[in-house]
Amino acid sequence: MTNMLWGGRFSGAPDALMRAFNDSISFDIRLWDADLTGSDAYAQALARAGIITPAEADTLRHGLKQIRAEFDDGQFTLAAGDEDIHTAVERRLKELVGNVAGKLHTGRSRNDQVATDTRLWLRGEISALRTHLQTCLSAIVTAAETHLDAIMPGYTHVQQAQPIRFSHWLLSYGWKFARDLARLDDVARRTNVLPLGSGALSGNPLPVDRHFLAETLGFDAISENSMDAVSDRDYLVDFLHWASLTQTHLSSLAEDLILFNSTEYGFIELSDAYSTGSSLMPQKKNPDSLELIRGKTGRIVGHHMAMLTTLKGLPSTYNKDMQEDKEPLFDTVDTLAMTLPIMAGVINTMTVHPDRMVAAMSSLLLATELADYLVSKGMPFRDAHDVAGQVVQLSLATEQPLWSIPLPAYKSISPLFDRDVHDWLNFESAVERRRSPGGTAKDSVLAQIAAMKTLLA
Amino acid sequence: MTNMLWGGRFSGAPDALMRAFNDSISFDIRLWDADLTGSDAYAQALARAGIITPAEADTLRHGLKQIRAEFDDGQFTLAAGDEDIHTAVERRLKELVGNVAGKLHTGRSRNDQVATDTRLWLRGEISALRTHLQTCLSAIVTAAETHLDAIMPGYTHVQQAQPIRFSHWLLSYGWKFARDLARLDDVARRTNVLPLGSGALSGNPLPVDRHFLAETLGFDAISENSMDAVSDRDYLVDFLHWASLTQTHLSSLAEDLILFNSTEYGFIELSDAYSTGSSLMPQKKNPDSLELIRGKTGRIVGHHMAMLTTLKGLPSTYNKDMQEDKEPLFDTVDTLAMTLPIMAGVINTMTVHPDRMVAAMSSLLLATELADYLVSKGMPFRDAHDVAGQVVQLSLATEQPLWSIPLPAYKSISPLFDRDVHDWLNFESAVERRRSPGGTAKDSVLAQIAAMKTLLA
Amino acid sequence: MTNMLWGGRFSGAPDALMRAFNDSISFDIRLWDADLTGSDAYAQALARAGIITPAEADTLRHGLKQIRAEFDDGQFTLAAGDEDIHTAVERRLKELVGNVAGKLHTGRSRNDQVATDTRLWLRGEISALRTHLQTCLSAIVTAAETHLDAIMPGYTHVQQAQPIRFSHWLLSYGWKFARDLARLDDVARRTNVLPLGSGALSGNPLPVDRHFLAETLGFDAISENSMDAVSDRDYLVDFLHWASLTQTHLSSLAEDLILFNSTEYGFIELSDAYSTGSSLMPQKKNPDSLELIRGKTGRIVGHHMAMLTTLKGLPSTYNKDMQEDKEPLFDTVDTLAMTLPIMAGVINTMTVHPDRMVAAMSSLLLATELADYLVSKGMPFRDAHDVAGQVVQLSLATEQPLWSIPLPAYKSISPLFDRDVHDWLNFESAVERRRSPGGTAKDSVLAQIAAMKTLLA
Amino acid sequence: MTNMLWGGRFSGAPDALMRAFNDSISFDIRLWDADLTGSDAYAQALARAGIITPAEADTLRHGLKQIRAEFDDGQFTLAAGDEDIHTAVERRLKELVGNVAGKLHTGRSRNDQVATDTRLWLRGEISALRTHLQTCLSAIVTAAETHLDAIMPGYTHVQQAQPIRFSHWLLSYGWKFARDLARLDDVARRTNVLPLGSGALSGNPLPVDRHFLAETLGFDAISENSMDAVSDRDYLVDFLHWASLTQTHLSSLAEDLILFNSTEYGFIELSDAYSTGSSLMPQKKNPDSLELIRGKTGRIVGHHMAMLTTLKGLPSTYNKDMQEDKEPLFDTVDTLAMTLPIMAGVINTMTVHPDRMVAAMSSLLLATELADYLVSKGMPFRDAHDVAGQVVQLSLATEQPLWSIPLPAYKSISPLFDRDVHDWLNFESAVERRRSPGGTAKDSVLAQIAAMKTLLA
Repeated sequence: MTNMLWGGRFSGAPDALMRAFNDSISFDIRLWDADLTGSDAYAQALARAGIITPAEADTLRHGLKQIRAEFDDGQFTLAAGDEDIHTAVERRLKELVGNVAGKLHTGRSRNDQVATDTRLWLRGEISALRTHLQTCLSAIVTAAETHLDAIMPGYTHVQQAQPIRFSHWLLSYGWKFARDLARLDDVARRTNVLPLGSGALSGNPLPVDRHFLAETLGFDAISENSMDAVSDRDYLVDFLHWASLTQTHLSSLAEDLILFNSTEYGFIELSDAYSTGSSLMPQKKNPDSLELIRGKTGRIVGHHMAMLTTLKGLPSTYNKDMQEDKEPLFDTVDTLAMTLPIMAGVINTMTVHPDRMVAAMSSLLLATELADYLVSKGMPFRDAHDVAGQVVQLSLATEQPLWSIPLPAYKSISPLFDRDVHDWLNFESAVERRRSPGGTAKDSVLAQIAAMKTLLA
Repeated sequence: MTNMLWGGRFSGAPDALMRAFNDSISFDIRLWDADLTGSDAYAQALARAGIITPAEADTLRHGLKQIRAEFDDGQFTLAAGDEDIHTAVERRLKELVGNVAGKLHTGRSRNDQVATDTRLWLRGEISALRTHLQTCLSAIVTAAETHLDAIMPGYTHVQQAQPIRFSHWLLSYGWKFARDLARLDDVARRTNVLPLGSGALSGNPLPVDRHFLAETLGFDAISENSMDAVSDRDYLVDFLHWASLTQTHLSSLAEDLILFNSTEYGFIELSDAYSTGSSLMPQKKNPDSLELIRGKTGRIVGHHMAMLTTLKGLPSTYNKDMQEDKEPLFDTVDTLAMTLPIMAGVINTMTVHPDRMVAAMSSLLLATELADYLVSKGMPFRDAHDVAGQVVQLSLATEQPLWSIPLPAYKSISPLFDRDVHDWLNFESAVERRRSPGGTAKDSVLAQIAAMKTLLA
Repeated sequence: MTNMLWGGRFSGAPDALMRAFNDSISFDIRLWDADLTGSDAYAQALARAGIITPAEADTLRHGLKQIRAEFDDGQFTLAAGDEDIHTAVERRLKELVGNVAGKLHTGRSRNDQVATDTRLWLRGEISALRTHLQTCLSAIVTAAETHLDAIMPGYTHVQQAQPIRFSHWLLSYGWKFARDLARLDDVARRTNVLPLGSGALSGNPLPVDRHFLAETLGFDAISENSMDAVSDRDYLVDFLHWASLTQTHLSSLAEDLILFNSTEYGFIELSDAYSTGSSLMPQKKNPDSLELIRGKTGRIVGHHMAMLTTLKGLPSTYNKDMQEDKEPLFDTVDTLAMTLPIMAGVINTMTVHPDRMVAAMSSLLLATELADYLVSKGMPFRDAHDVAGQVVQLSLATEQPLWSIPLPAYKSISPLFDRDVHDWLNFESAVERRRSPGGTAKDSVLAQIAAMKTLLA
Repeated sequence: MTNMLWGGRFSGAPDALMRAFNDSISFDIRLWDADLTGSDAYAQALARAGIITPAEADTLRHGLKQIRAEFDDGQFTLAAGDEDIHTAVERRLKELVGNVAGKLHTGRSRNDQVATDTRLWLRGEISALRTHLQTCLSAIVTAAETHLDAIMPGYTHVQQAQPIRFSHWLLSYGWKFARDLARLDDVARRTNVLPLGSGALSGNPLPVDRHFLAETLGFDAISENSMDAVSDRDYLVDFLHWASLTQTHLSSLAEDLILFNSTEYGFIELSDAYSTGSSLMPQKKNPDSLELIRGKTGRIVGHHMAMLTTLKGLPSTYNKDMQEDKEPLFDTVDTLAMTLPIMAGVINTMTVHPDRMVAAMSSLLLATELADYLVSKGMPFRDAHDVAGQVVQLSLATEQPLWSIPLPAYKSISPLFDRDVHDWLNFESAVERRRSPGGTAKDSVLAQIAAMKTLLA
């Protein structure tokens, strides 16, 4: 079988396995909408440049519209020679409108066509992912508001560190997602540049108006060098970077929630809707949702790595290696389109147990307060830290919480300790002392919630 | 809908998106054969242990056989609750044989079941990949024999270095693939260890004979710790390592062939069967086969990275994150099952142009011979290298090949040069001088071919 | 030995190997400037908040100034207990000013201190890298201007595709670097956010003015959540993403130049200054500069993946795993601070051979022109492509360049061919036909040069 | 400055930054021992082949011995032109023995020299790492023996699953390390192949006896193709794969231990020797040792990915890109030479709290026993699982442990429950029921310990 698009100079037919290896229709068919949209604009541009007649343009556009209807209705069928979505559409167009279909590709190459299609498609997906990210952020803000008064142990190194508000912990992820949102907007901007009109590599030989194309297709700018335009995959790597980082944030939130949901912590309980059981152990209620979110970070980072490895050392302009950009991209989009709403669902439906948080809090969470107490009495912080360390040793040795150690014992460690020390040792006031911007005091947390609502509005 | 397998303690139903997120049936269905094989052996083991009656075992095995027939005939249909292949098979078995189906899972968990299935499946795929690797190696050996007399420029740093046999170049890849073959055998050995009988994590509470299971299923050994057995994914990482390295070898061979196939080199010409054309440029005949092989290295390395990232920092035994092991594994197997035979096809069908190789050879390829000549006259090599460098400068400045520089000019650089210098400067004899083991002389190349044939036999 | 900073509650001493494993002073000492700058500002802030007296602040600042002088003069010496730069500075400050040094850490933790130091340091490095990137871009623009008239084969798939200007090829990389420049500015902006005042995780309990700190230290904004602030490594991943992509661009440019510098292409010749020879082969002049640039892409991508892997699944706030952020960051900065100027040097000093470019051009580079010719005669492009393919077959079979095929032979393939066909087949006019924005025609290239000069101004 | 080794044909000097970029002496100096050993053997081989006289060989060997003494005494000093260890040694040798030094490189290239040196060096390091791995494994075996009777909750999905022996958990990591040991032996075998005698790429033109070289240097085999020999980096990727997997195992063990060491679990307590404190929070005792082990997984995986990325698509034989193989290799060796003994130290010095393990155990850990109980009464497992799930629901709703639910309540769920049910619900007997090979029963654990001791002997 001679290839319709490029068979002219060939005498031998492709090897059957090679056909399967080479064809991309199995995955790039999802670009159909973008491909039709791009072709419709190009038909108009060819007519405006006088390359085809208005009547020819109408015929082409009508044919494309019919194909769109076929896709919409699930009626579009592939034929044997359809190696990619572009071939499939061109083949079908010829069936529908005859030889004039062959004019649609004047001055256009698959190199600039596929680059345009991918950008158009991704633009739409970014918009959808933006919404998913906002949904996730909203869930966090809502939960932070609902549980404003819950106080829990704050951790560093998975060790109890200082008391914090549960809301403050939640919002710490909120700010990560807020950065992801801003980063996604940058990716969207970088994606929205039109390569169409670059030909195979050296530019379009026709007086096609690229600014008209950009405007028609909603692009913000046109590419400035045809060789760069057909080989530029930066926006895809930008997108994968966004995805890797967002998913890494999700992985940490998942890790925290998995711990908090354990028997040992018990701070939250996942709803049945986001848990699954065991085929062997009847009591199990496993946080599979969160584990999958955490685990899928490997998948996304792997796709990112794949793209960079494929691009490394590639010579100038288009090389077929670049066809490998699609599947990691598609799977990344599909994965984030699941992990973000699943995380939102987990947060929206989980039960929060403030009582379990309080029960878990060791008095040693207040050791820093002890040092601060001494500082307030005039001791340099570094010395105060050391003295507080001795109190901690006493507490551990005598198994008494800090608040139960009697004043004489305190005084024997430092004469600066006075009768107000026991009052000072209080989770609520430790939290409320952190009222500088970004701290865990209620006012600061409320300010964060307000800022995030503005951002989401 | 209550889940058949693990729904007992649950009151709420899973979220719909969560179902889609959690289910693995869309990709793990390809384990059906392994799942049926494993269950059949387990039914026998349960009967031998007296946990079920021989009649029950027969019923179960007959049901499994029926399911196998349904898969073989493409008649097996999924039902709404089939979250994975194990659930699907269990559900169907119950439909076919009734409640006794529920006995098949006595003492068995999906944790040890899925680990067993994956090993069984991979064992078969490794065997197929072994054959593909041998095919590729055979193509190299055959081409090396056919073109034994072709001499070409050998390169380092993409610069002409020393003359070599084309066969020697081909065989340099042959030895890489020979190592890949040996490495794959190690992976096969490490894969062939039976986890079945480990339960969910703590072992099987029944007197099931694990050695009988291993023997029946063709495993070489049984796992020695149940907690390790259900979490061990080492063999998958071993396999991905094999795949990354093999594919990296393919990427370098592809790079060489892409260059050799270019207008500028012209040493080989790919057959039409492994080339494709351009939708815009009528003259193009592009080596897409080789570019895709090179490009897919990103995909494989990405999968490898994905698996390591997913496993990193994972707590003990089974976590749902591990469900992410399947898709990278499957895609890696599928990719190598294409790239290896495609490479074999490229080699088997390419045209070799020894005349173009000779035409491309610069006389400077013999500069080392010049130094060796001086060494043969007694000059220390390092000095000889320096003198030869001066001859090279003269050759470049006067645009004369080394063999055309007159003797007086040689003598003015070093008095050791004599009238035999011009005879010494000969590509064929330069090649034949490298007759120590592993060198490019004909005898050494023939010895390599013989060794490789033995290896392939 | 009891640890000065945190030893209070400890009774046992650290294991010696553990000390070596834990300490970061060997690499984080390069943060000394940032650490002193941050501490100086913090001393001021403590005084303004009334936590320390103005006299104490002066003492602290004077001590810090002395330490700065010691570093500047290479006189600063490490002591046995200096586990990191922060400890070293604190230890030295205490030696210089006595116990008041212990007041500097009031309300400040190493968690917010190290985050601040790293951002301060990176801000400076980004500024230096920006200059290197501009230098590289300038080299491209200068070379593009110098060789404006050189025409060469344009390639896709490493196959001759269409004629282009050498300048157009160069500028195709220029635009990639222009995007890198814009991307780096975004990273700079995201880096320039102040975490200081976040304490260990829950915020600063003192009325320290974080906006004053930001202003003093030149930060654009303050972090909005203390738990996020001490764990946020997004800006590092952003930076590594920038580095990976920039280095990937360099790797492709290196690949092209390595090919162009080969005997087979001969389009350029690297200067001796960026080449090295062989210890064995006297004629060798290898493009080591470019190979190292290409090879170091692995290093950068590896650092990027290292950071993502380390962060994956990490629980909330600071974990010691994060100490692993420094070495990949430092090495990435150091590497790009070499690869960018080396690439600029290569471009500035290479010899360009336009004659070799012309000599290398196959007439088949004009096959698309042939199709365009037929389109200009009214044939639909797809048919014209097919007809041109037949001419290509004739050219290959008869070994005649396109321009030497006689008119009757042309006409026998299509009657639309006429006597103007031979005039049409001209490299210069093929290039000049691509005059739409982004094309390879002279006006378009000049417009690109002008745009890039504006960008660099 | 003209380069001593390869400067003959060059007229221009290298750029200063290029020198720094190109030189590898800063890191490859650690190959000095291997370089001297390899050269010593090569001097002997040259003499045996009659290329140099026995006296010359003696002179060379004596000079090399002197250089070795200089290195041993820390007296070796670098000179300005020493671009790598090979140049440095050659330069010094010439200073010591004069021009005869120039004969040592006859027929040898840096390409086969560096490949030989690296294999020699790595062989030694692998041997040291093997010992570290054994130390780690021994620590596990010893701890498993010591705490044989400790029973703890076994986890899947970080949820309590079934009771297990603490020893069984420890040994689950032991088996992973045992596989790492076997894998390392394979890497050692693949490393121990001699490339020396391959020249730059095409083989050695002299009658040097490569088998003599292999025997003298302790290599098991010689490389079989010179082009492959100088470009083969498989053994390095094999080693990095070993390191990635071993470090991933360490990361999971670290994760488990970090959790077990937390306030919430409290199963173990790290010794002060492997913990560090906080500069702000006086009570903190952080498991920095384990966090660094976990975090350094990123570093190792990053090095692995770096190597694969560098190798991807590299053309045939030696390219300078390959110089990038050293630093990731060296750092990987250095890292594992820390993480393995640190982990051994952590295990050897930690305090184990069996009482805290028992206190943490939920009665629901016995839910599977309940199902097994019903199976023992004749109910199919799947039904028994469902019934046990109902008992779990009852237990949760009434907040009664399984063993406190009265018999009538049991019977109301299934009539098969009888008075022996309460006896059945016992952690010890649940553990002892898993006595099949690989299970958590004492006999099985003792068998594992015995097997591991054999392996370590």
